[in-house]
Amino acid sequence: MSTEKCFAKGSAAPGPVPENYIRLYSMRFCPFAHRARLVLNAKGIKHDTININLKDKPDWFLERNPLGLVPTLETPAGEVIYESPITCEYLDEVYPEKKLLPSSPFGKAQQKMMLEHFSKITPYFYKIPTGRKNGEDVSGLEAELKEKFAKLNEDLVNKKTSFFGGDSITMIDYMMWPWFERLEIFELQHCLDNTPELKKWTESMWEDPAVKATMHSVDTYKAFYKTYIEGKPNYDYGL
Amino acid sequence: MSTEKCFAKGSAAPGPVPENYIRLYSMRFCPFAHRARLVLNAKGIKHDTININLKDKPDWFLERNPLGLVPTLETPAGEVIYESPITCEYLDEVYPEKKLLPSSPFGKAQQKMMLEHFSKITPYFYKIPTGRKNGEDVSGLEAELKEKFAKLNEDLVNKKTSFFGGDSITMIDYMMWPWFERLEIFELQHCLDNTPELKKWTESMWEDPAVKATMHSVDTYKAFYKTYIEGKPNYDYGL
Repeated sequence: MSTEKCFAKGSAAPGPVPENYIRLYSMRFCPFAHRARLVLNAKGIKHDTININLKDKPDWFLERNPLGLVPTLETPAGEVIYESPITCEYLDEVYPEKKLLPSSPFGKAQQKMMLEHFSKITPYFYKIPTGRKNGEDVSGLEAELKEKFAKLNEDLVNKKTSFFGGDSITMIDYMMWPWFERLEIFELQHCLDNTPELKKWTESMWEDPAVKATMHSVDTYKAFYKTYIEGKPNYDYGL
Repeated sequence: MSTEKCFAKGSAAPGPVPENYIRLYSMRFCPFAHRARLVLNAKGIKHDTININLKDKPDWFLERNPLGLVPTLETPAGEVIYESPITCEYLDEVYPEKKLLPSSPFGKAQQKMMLEHFSKITPYFYKIPTGRKNGEDVSGLEAELKEKFAKLNEDLVNKKTSFFGGDSITMIDYMMWPWFERLEIFELQHCLDNTPELKKWTESMWEDPAVKATMHSVDTYKAFYKTYIEGKPNYDYGL
Protein backbone atom coordinates (compact mmCIF):
# COMPACT_ATOMS: atom_id res chain seq x y z
CA MET A 1 0.00 0.00 0.00
CA SER A 2 2.93 2.34 0.42
CA THR A 3 4.13 4.52 -2.41
CA GLU A 4 7.70 5.14 -1.40
CA LYS A 5 9.06 7.68 -3.89
CA CYS A 6 8.19 11.23 -2.98
CA PHE A 7 5.50 13.33 -4.62
CA ALA A 8 6.48 16.80 -5.84
CA LYS A 9 4.59 19.81 -7.21
CA GLY A 10 2.81 18.88 -10.41
CA SER A 11 2.40 15.21 -9.47
CA ALA A 12 -1.02 13.61 -9.69
CA ALA A 13 -2.85 13.50 -6.35
CA PRO A 14 -3.08 10.06 -4.74
CA GLY A 15 -6.48 8.37 -4.72
CA PRO A 16 -8.82 8.45 -1.74
CA VAL A 17 -7.72 6.87 1.54
CA PRO A 18 -8.94 3.25 1.50
CA GLU A 19 -11.59 2.24 4.03
CA ASN A 20 -10.08 0.91 7.29
CA TYR A 21 -6.79 2.58 6.46
CA ILE A 22 -5.26 5.79 7.62
CA ARG A 23 -2.85 7.75 5.44
CA LEU A 24 0.44 9.20 6.58
CA TYR A 25 2.01 12.06 4.65
CA SER A 26 5.66 11.74 5.49
CA MET A 27 9.26 12.33 4.51
CA ARG A 28 11.47 9.27 4.95
CA PHE A 29 14.19 11.04 6.93
CA CYS A 30 12.15 13.55 8.96
CA PRO A 31 12.46 12.92 12.73
CA PHE A 32 9.01 14.38 13.42
CA ALA A 33 7.34 12.13 10.83
CA HIS A 34 9.42 9.30 12.31
CA ARG A 35 7.42 9.68 15.53
CA ALA A 36 4.18 8.91 13.70
CA ARG A 37 5.84 6.04 11.78
CA LEU A 38 6.93 4.49 15.09
CA VAL A 39 3.44 4.75 16.58
CA LEU A 40 1.71 3.39 13.46
CA ASN A 41 4.12 0.49 13.44
CA ALA A 42 4.11 -0.26 17.18
CA LYS A 43 0.32 -0.35 17.23
CA GLY A 44 0.05 -2.33 14.00
CA ILE A 45 -2.24 0.24 12.38
CA LYS A 46 -3.13 -0.37 8.71
CA HIS A 47 -1.88 2.65 6.83
CA ASP A 48 -0.46 3.84 3.56
CA THR A 49 2.35 6.34 3.28
CA ILE A 50 2.67 9.22 0.84
CA ASN A 51 6.13 10.75 0.91
CA ILE A 52 6.27 14.45 0.15
CA ASN A 53 9.03 16.44 -1.55
CA LEU A 54 9.34 19.11 1.15
CA LYS A 55 11.31 21.45 -1.12
CA ASP A 56 8.65 21.40 -3.81
CA LYS A 57 5.31 20.49 -2.27
CA PRO A 58 2.33 19.39 -4.37
CA ASP A 59 -0.63 21.77 -4.35
CA TRP A 60 -2.97 18.95 -3.36
CA PHE A 61 -0.87 18.44 -0.23
CA LEU A 62 -1.01 22.14 0.68
CA GLU A 63 -4.76 22.03 0.21
CA ARG A 64 -4.98 19.31 2.84
CA ASN A 65 -2.51 20.96 5.22
CA PRO A 66 -1.83 24.64 4.45
CA LEU A 67 1.19 24.53 6.78
CA GLY A 68 2.68 21.85 4.51
CA LEU A 69 4.18 19.94 7.43
CA VAL A 70 4.86 16.25 7.91
CA PRO A 71 3.65 14.19 9.62
CA THR A 72 0.09 14.76 8.47
CA LEU A 73 -2.62 12.11 8.81
CA GLU A 74 -5.72 11.76 6.64
CA THR A 75 -8.67 9.49 7.34
CA PRO A 76 -11.07 7.96 4.80
CA ALA A 77 -13.59 10.61 5.95
CA GLY A 78 -11.14 13.33 4.90
CA GLU A 79 -10.21 14.40 8.43
CA VAL A 80 -6.71 15.89 8.53
CA ILE A 81 -4.46 15.87 11.61
CA TYR A 82 -0.95 17.35 11.94
CA GLU A 83 1.76 18.30 14.47
CA SER A 84 3.60 15.17 15.55
CA PRO A 85 2.45 14.97 19.21
CA ILE A 86 -1.15 15.58 18.13
CA THR A 87 -1.00 12.89 15.42
CA CYS A 88 0.50 10.36 17.84
CA GLU A 89 -2.03 11.01 20.59
CA TYR A 90 -4.84 10.83 18.03
CA LEU A 91 -3.60 7.43 16.81
CA ASP A 92 -3.36 6.17 20.39
CA GLU A 93 -6.92 7.26 21.16
CA VAL A 94 -8.52 5.96 17.98
CA TYR A 95 -6.71 2.61 17.98
CA PRO A 96 -7.06 1.18 21.48
CA GLU A 97 -4.84 -1.88 20.88
CA LYS A 98 -1.48 -1.56 22.63
CA LYS A 99 -2.05 1.73 24.39
CA LEU A 100 1.09 3.84 24.45
CA LEU A 101 -0.10 6.67 26.70
CA PRO A 102 -0.96 5.98 30.36
CA SER A 103 -4.67 5.89 31.15
CA SER A 104 -4.41 8.11 34.24
CA PRO A 105 -4.67 11.87 33.68
CA PHE A 106 -1.56 12.48 35.80
CA GLY A 107 0.44 9.81 33.93
CA LYS A 108 -0.55 11.45 30.66
CA ALA A 109 0.33 14.92 32.00
CA GLN A 110 3.75 13.62 33.10
CA GLN A 111 4.52 12.36 29.58
CA LYS A 112 3.49 15.70 28.11
CA MET A 113 5.68 17.61 30.55
CA MET A 114 8.62 15.33 29.66
CA LEU A 115 7.97 16.01 25.98
CA GLU A 116 7.95 19.75 26.67
CA HIS A 117 11.38 19.43 28.31
CA PHE A 118 12.63 17.29 25.44
CA SER A 119 11.52 19.90 22.89
CA LYS A 120 14.37 22.07 24.22
CA ILE A 121 16.89 19.36 23.26
CA THR A 122 16.02 18.82 19.58
CA PRO A 123 17.41 22.21 18.39
CA TYR A 124 20.94 21.08 19.34
CA PHE A 125 20.73 18.43 16.61
CA TYR A 126 20.62 21.25 14.08
CA LYS A 127 22.75 23.88 15.83
CA ILE A 128 25.78 21.65 16.42
CA PRO A 129 26.10 20.17 12.89
CA THR A 130 25.44 23.60 11.34
CA GLY A 131 28.01 25.24 13.63
CA ARG A 132 30.61 22.62 12.76
CA LYS A 133 29.93 23.04 9.05
CA ASN A 134 30.58 26.77 9.45
CA GLY A 135 33.83 26.07 11.27
CA GLU A 136 32.53 27.41 14.59
CA ASP A 137 33.58 26.23 18.04
CA VAL A 138 30.67 24.03 19.13
CA SER A 139 32.19 22.80 22.41
CA GLY A 140 29.87 25.07 24.40
CA LEU A 141 26.79 23.70 22.62
CA GLU A 142 28.04 20.14 23.13
CA ALA A 143 28.50 20.81 26.85
CA GLU A 144 24.93 22.10 27.03
CA LEU A 145 23.62 19.01 25.24
CA LYS A 146 25.59 16.74 27.62
CA GLU A 147 24.06 18.62 30.54
CA LYS A 148 20.59 17.95 29.16
CA PHE A 149 21.40 14.29 28.58
CA ALA A 150 22.61 14.13 32.20
CA LYS A 151 19.14 15.32 33.31
CA LEU A 152 17.50 12.56 31.26
CA ASN A 153 19.91 10.05 32.76
CA GLU A 154 19.06 11.28 36.27
CA ASP A 155 15.38 10.87 35.46
CA LEU A 156 15.91 7.17 34.60
CA VAL A 157 18.05 6.68 37.75
CA ASN A 158 15.37 8.27 39.96
CA LYS A 159 12.59 6.26 38.37
CA LYS A 160 14.60 3.01 38.51
CA THR A 161 12.98 1.95 35.23
CA SER A 162 14.44 0.96 31.86
CA PHE A 163 12.22 3.33 29.89
CA PHE A 164 10.93 6.83 30.51
CA GLY A 165 7.37 5.77 31.26
CA GLY A 166 8.09 2.52 33.14
CA ASP A 167 9.55 -0.90 32.41
CA SER A 168 8.20 -1.13 28.90
CA ILE A 169 8.18 1.30 26.00
CA THR A 170 5.47 3.97 26.11
CA MET A 171 4.69 7.03 24.03
CA ILE A 172 7.42 9.27 25.47
CA ASP A 173 10.14 6.82 24.41
CA TYR A 174 8.92 6.89 20.81
CA MET A 175 8.62 10.68 20.88
CA MET A 176 12.27 11.03 21.88
CA TRP A 177 13.76 8.18 19.89
CA PRO A 178 14.13 9.70 16.38
CA TRP A 179 16.87 12.08 17.62
CA PHE A 180 18.78 9.33 19.40
CA GLU A 181 18.65 7.19 16.25
CA ARG A 182 20.45 10.09 14.53
CA LEU A 183 23.18 10.59 17.17
CA GLU A 184 25.85 8.78 15.17
CA ILE A 185 24.89 10.52 11.93
CA PHE A 186 25.38 13.88 13.60
CA GLU A 187 28.58 12.69 15.30
CA LEU A 188 27.15 13.28 18.73
CA GLN A 189 27.46 9.81 20.17
CA HIS A 190 30.22 10.84 22.58
CA CYS A 191 27.61 13.00 24.34
CA LEU A 192 26.29 9.73 25.85
CA ASP A 193 29.67 8.80 27.38
CA ASN A 194 28.83 9.95 30.89
CA THR A 195 25.19 8.89 30.96
CA PRO A 196 25.21 5.08 31.33
CA GLU A 197 21.48 4.66 31.99
CA LEU A 198 20.55 6.77 29.00
CA LYS A 199 23.01 4.80 26.88
CA LYS A 200 21.41 1.56 28.10
CA TRP A 201 18.02 3.00 27.16
CA THR A 202 19.24 3.59 23.58
CA GLU A 203 20.51 0.00 23.47
CA SER A 204 17.12 -1.32 24.59
CA MET A 205 15.36 0.91 22.07
CA TRP A 206 17.43 -0.50 19.20
CA GLU A 207 15.94 -3.91 20.05
CA ASP A 208 12.34 -2.73 19.70
CA PRO A 209 10.50 -4.17 16.66
CA ALA A 210 8.94 -0.80 15.71
CA VAL A 211 12.35 0.87 15.88
CA LYS A 212 13.84 -1.88 13.71
CA ALA A 213 11.01 -1.63 11.19
CA THR A 214 11.28 2.14 10.74
CA MET A 215 15.05 2.72 10.90
CA HIS A 216 17.50 3.59 8.15
CA SER A 217 21.12 2.48 8.09
CA VAL A 218 23.77 4.96 9.18
CA ASP A 219 25.12 5.01 5.61
CA THR A 220 21.72 5.90 4.18
CA TYR A 221 21.18 8.67 6.73
CA LYS A 222 24.66 10.06 6.14
CA ALA A 223 24.15 10.09 2.39
CA PHE A 224 20.79 11.81 2.74
CA TYR A 225 22.03 14.45 5.18
CA LYS A 226 24.96 15.19 2.87
CA THR A 227 22.51 16.11 0.10
CA TYR A 228 20.38 17.98 2.66
CA ILE A 229 23.25 20.15 3.90
CA GLU A 230 24.20 20.88 0.30
CA GLY A 231 20.70 22.31 -0.14
CA LYS A 232 19.61 19.60 -2.59
CA PRO A 233 17.96 16.96 -0.40
CA ASN A 234 17.56 13.62 -2.17
CA TYR A 235 14.36 12.46 -0.47
CA ASP A 236 14.43 9.23 -2.49
CA TYR A 237 17.99 8.27 -1.54
CA GLY A 238 18.36 4.50 -1.29
CA LEU A 239 15.14 3.59 -3.09
CA MET B 1 -9.23 29.37 50.74
CA SER B 2 -7.34 31.75 48.50
CA THR B 3 -4.32 33.66 49.74
CA GLU B 4 -4.25 36.56 47.36
CA LYS B 5 -1.04 38.46 48.13
CA CYS B 6 1.96 36.96 46.40
CA PHE B 7 4.62 34.84 48.06
CA ALA B 8 8.25 35.83 47.53
CA LYS B 9 11.61 34.27 48.35
CA GLY B 10 11.99 33.83 52.08
CA SER B 11 8.26 33.48 52.71
CA ALA B 12 6.97 30.53 54.71
CA ALA B 13 5.72 27.68 52.53
CA PRO B 14 1.94 27.25 52.44
CA GLY B 15 0.49 24.24 54.25
CA PRO B 16 -0.44 21.00 52.50
CA VAL B 17 -3.13 21.02 49.83
CA PRO B 18 -6.44 20.27 51.59
CA GLU B 19 -8.21 17.01 50.73
CA ASN B 20 -10.68 17.39 47.85
CA TYR B 21 -8.96 20.57 46.77
CA ILE B 22 -6.44 21.27 44.08
CA ARG B 23 -3.93 24.08 44.40
CA LEU B 24 -3.11 26.60 41.70
CA TYR B 25 0.19 28.46 41.79
CA SER B 26 -0.57 31.59 39.84
CA MET B 27 0.21 35.22 39.17
CA ARG B 28 -2.89 37.42 39.07
CA PHE B 29 -2.08 39.08 35.74
CA CYS B 30 -0.41 36.22 33.84
CA PRO B 31 -2.39 35.24 30.71
CA PHE B 32 -1.13 31.64 30.87
CA ALA B 33 -2.22 31.22 34.49
CA HIS B 34 -5.47 32.92 33.45
CA ARG B 35 -6.22 29.89 31.27
CA ALA B 36 -6.15 27.60 34.31
CA ARG B 37 -8.17 30.09 36.37
CA LEU B 38 -10.86 30.11 33.67
CA VAL B 39 -11.04 26.31 33.56
CA LEU B 40 -11.09 25.92 37.37
CA ASN B 41 -13.87 28.47 37.53
CA ALA B 42 -15.94 27.21 34.58
CA LYS B 43 -15.89 23.67 35.94
CA GLY B 44 -16.56 24.76 39.53
CA ILE B 45 -13.48 22.94 40.85
CA LYS B 46 -12.67 23.48 44.55
CA HIS B 47 -9.21 25.01 44.64
CA ASP B 48 -6.96 27.35 46.53
CA THR B 49 -4.65 29.83 44.86
CA ILE B 50 -1.09 30.69 45.83
CA ASN B 51 0.18 33.73 43.96
CA ILE B 52 3.90 33.76 43.26
CA ASN B 53 6.24 36.73 43.01
CA LEU B 54 7.74 35.80 39.65
CA LYS B 55 10.66 38.22 40.06
CA ASP B 56 11.70 36.70 43.37
CA LYS B 57 10.43 33.13 43.58
CA PRO B 58 10.27 31.22 46.86
CA ASP B 59 12.62 28.20 47.09
CA TRP B 60 9.71 25.96 48.08
CA PHE B 61 8.01 26.86 44.79
CA LEU B 62 11.13 26.05 42.75
CA GLU B 63 11.35 22.72 44.57
CA ARG B 64 7.86 21.88 43.35
CA ASN B 65 8.44 23.18 39.81
CA PRO B 66 12.13 23.72 38.91
CA LEU B 67 11.04 25.73 35.86
CA GLY B 68 9.32 28.16 38.21
CA LEU B 69 6.42 28.71 35.83
CA VAL B 70 2.78 29.55 36.45
CA PRO B 71 0.29 28.02 36.15
CA THR B 72 1.38 25.05 38.26
CA LEU B 73 -1.11 22.68 39.87
CA GLU B 74 -0.52 20.60 43.00
CA THR B 75 -2.78 17.83 44.26
CA PRO B 76 -3.18 16.64 47.88
CA ALA B 77 -1.03 13.63 46.88
CA GLY B 78 1.79 16.02 45.92
CA GLU B 79 1.46 15.54 42.16
CA VAL B 80 2.68 18.60 40.28
CA ILE B 81 1.45 19.62 36.80
CA TYR B 82 2.57 22.62 34.72
CA GLU B 83 2.43 24.15 31.21
CA SER B 84 -0.96 25.79 30.71
CA PRO B 85 -2.44 23.45 28.04
CA ILE B 86 -1.32 20.41 30.09
CA THR B 87 -2.85 21.78 33.32
CA CYS B 88 -6.15 22.58 31.58
CA GLU B 89 -6.45 19.19 29.90
CA TYR B 90 -5.57 17.49 33.20
CA LEU B 91 -8.34 19.41 34.97
CA ASP B 92 -10.83 18.51 32.26
CA GLU B 93 -9.95 14.81 32.50
CA VAL B 94 -9.95 14.56 36.29
CA TYR B 95 -13.14 16.58 36.81
CA PRO B 96 -15.72 15.16 34.43
CA GLU B 97 -18.43 17.75 35.21
CA LYS B 98 -18.90 20.24 32.37
CA LYS B 99 -16.46 18.75 29.90
CA LEU B 100 -14.63 21.44 27.94
CA LEU B 101 -12.79 19.25 25.45
CA PRO B 102 -14.72 17.23 22.84
CA SER B 103 -14.96 13.52 23.55
CA SER B 104 -14.01 12.45 20.01
CA PRO B 105 -10.29 12.04 19.26
CA PHE B 106 -10.63 14.13 16.09
CA GLY B 107 -12.51 16.90 17.93
CA LYS B 108 -9.74 16.98 20.52
CA ALA B 109 -7.05 16.99 17.82
CA GLN B 110 -8.79 19.91 16.09
CA GLN B 111 -8.73 21.98 19.28
CA LYS B 112 -5.02 21.21 19.76
CA MET B 113 -4.23 22.21 16.16
CA MET B 114 -6.14 25.48 16.67
CA LEU B 115 -4.14 26.09 19.84
CA GLU B 116 -0.91 25.46 17.94
CA HIS B 117 -1.95 28.11 15.39
CA PHE B 118 -2.94 30.49 18.17
CA SER B 119 0.46 30.10 19.85
CA LYS B 120 1.89 32.05 16.90
CA ILE B 121 -0.39 35.00 17.77
CA THR B 122 0.48 35.55 21.44
CA PRO B 123 4.02 36.92 20.78
CA TYR B 124 2.48 39.98 19.07
CA PHE B 125 1.02 41.01 22.42
CA TYR B 126 4.57 41.52 23.66
CA LYS B 127 6.29 42.61 20.45
CA ILE B 128 3.88 45.44 19.62
CA PRO B 129 3.77 47.14 23.06
CA THR B 130 7.56 46.74 23.45
CA GLY B 131 8.16 48.15 19.96
CA ARG B 132 5.93 51.15 20.69
CA LYS B 133 7.69 51.78 23.98
CA ASN B 134 11.00 51.87 22.10
CA GLY B 135 9.57 54.32 19.57
CA GLU B 136 9.67 51.81 16.71
CA ASP B 137 7.27 51.67 13.79
CA VAL B 138 4.94 48.80 14.66
CA SER B 139 2.54 49.19 11.73
CA GLY B 140 4.02 46.08 10.06
CA LEU B 141 3.49 44.00 13.19
CA GLU B 142 -0.04 45.34 13.54
CA ALA B 143 -0.78 44.39 9.93
CA GLU B 144 0.48 40.85 10.62
CA LEU B 145 -1.70 40.59 13.72
CA LYS B 146 -4.73 41.81 11.76
CA GLU B 147 -3.99 39.17 9.14
CA LYS B 148 -3.99 36.49 11.83
CA PHE B 149 -7.22 37.82 13.31
CA ALA B 150 -8.73 37.69 9.81
CA LYS B 151 -7.89 33.95 9.70
CA LEU B 152 -9.65 33.42 13.03
CA ASN B 153 -12.62 35.38 11.75
CA GLU B 154 -12.72 33.24 8.60
CA ASP B 155 -12.67 30.15 10.78
CA LEU B 156 -15.82 31.31 12.63
CA VAL B 157 -17.49 32.23 9.31
CA ASN B 158 -16.72 28.81 7.83
CA LYS B 159 -17.92 26.97 10.91
CA LYS B 160 -21.06 29.12 11.22
CA THR B 161 -20.80 28.87 15.01
CA SER B 162 -20.55 31.54 17.71
CA PHE B 163 -17.54 29.92 19.39
CA PHE B 164 -14.45 28.16 18.09
CA GLY B 165 -15.58 24.68 19.13
CA GLY B 166 -19.31 25.01 18.39
CA ASP B 167 -22.29 26.97 19.69
CA SER B 168 -21.17 26.96 23.29
CA ILE B 169 -17.85 27.73 24.94
CA THR B 170 -15.30 24.91 24.89
CA MET B 171 -11.66 24.63 25.89
CA ILE B 172 -10.21 26.42 22.86
CA ASP B 173 -12.21 29.58 23.64
CA TYR B 174 -10.80 29.71 27.16
CA MET B 175 -7.27 29.02 25.89
CA MET B 176 -7.46 32.04 23.57
CA TRP B 177 -9.44 34.40 25.75
CA PRO B 178 -6.75 35.84 28.10
CA TRP B 179 -5.11 37.71 25.21
CA PHE B 180 -8.39 39.12 23.94
CA GLU B 181 -9.24 40.32 27.45
CA ARG B 182 -5.98 42.33 27.27
CA LEU B 183 -6.59 43.89 23.81
CA GLU B 184 -7.65 47.25 25.20
CA ILE B 185 -4.81 47.31 27.73
CA PHE B 186 -2.29 46.86 24.92
CA GLU B 187 -4.16 49.35 22.70
CA LEU B 188 -4.80 46.74 20.06
CA GLN B 189 -8.58 46.89 19.94
CA HIS B 190 -8.58 48.49 16.48
CA CYS B 191 -7.13 45.21 15.17
CA LEU B 192 -10.67 43.79 15.48
CA ASP B 193 -12.21 46.47 13.27
CA ASN B 194 -12.39 44.33 10.13
CA THR B 195 -13.26 41.04 11.79
CA PRO B 196 -16.93 41.31 12.80
CA GLU B 197 -17.42 37.64 13.74
CA LEU B 198 -14.33 37.63 15.92
CA LYS B 199 -15.49 40.86 17.55
CA LYS B 200 -18.90 39.27 18.21
CA TRP B 201 -17.07 36.32 19.75
CA THR B 202 -15.26 38.63 22.18
CA GLU B 203 -18.61 40.22 23.08
CA SER B 204 -20.12 36.79 23.82
CA MET B 205 -17.06 35.81 25.85
CA TRP B 206 -17.39 38.90 28.06
CA GLU B 207 -20.83 37.56 29.07
CA ASP B 208 -19.47 34.22 30.28
CA PRO B 209 -19.64 33.73 34.08
CA ALA B 210 -16.10 32.27 34.27
CA VAL B 211 -14.74 35.22 32.29
CA LYS B 212 -16.55 37.64 34.59
CA ALA B 213 -15.30 35.86 37.71
CA THR B 214 -11.63 35.91 36.68
CA MET B 215 -11.30 39.29 34.96
CA HIS B 216 -9.58 42.47 36.12
CA SER B 217 -10.73 45.98 35.26
CA VAL B 218 -8.92 47.82 32.48
CA ASP B 219 -7.64 50.31 35.04
CA THR B 220 -6.15 47.56 37.20
CA TYR B 221 -4.47 45.89 34.22
CA LYS B 222 -3.11 49.21 32.97
CA ALA B 223 -1.69 50.07 36.38
CA PHE B 224 -0.08 46.62 36.68
CA TYR B 225 1.44 46.66 33.19
CA LYS B 226 2.85 50.14 33.86
CA THR B 227 4.82 48.74 36.81
CA TYR B 228 5.71 45.67 34.73
CA ILE B 229 7.17 47.68 31.85
CA GLU B 230 9.13 49.77 34.34
CA GLY B 231 10.75 46.52 35.50
CA LYS B 232 9.15 46.63 38.97
CA PRO B 233 5.96 44.59 38.61
CA ASN B 234 3.52 45.17 41.45
CA TYR B 235 1.93 41.71 41.55
CA ASP B 236 -0.34 42.80 44.41
CA TYR B 237 -1.72 45.87 42.65
CA GLY B 238 -5.32 46.52 43.62
CA LEU B 239 -5.41 44.25 46.66
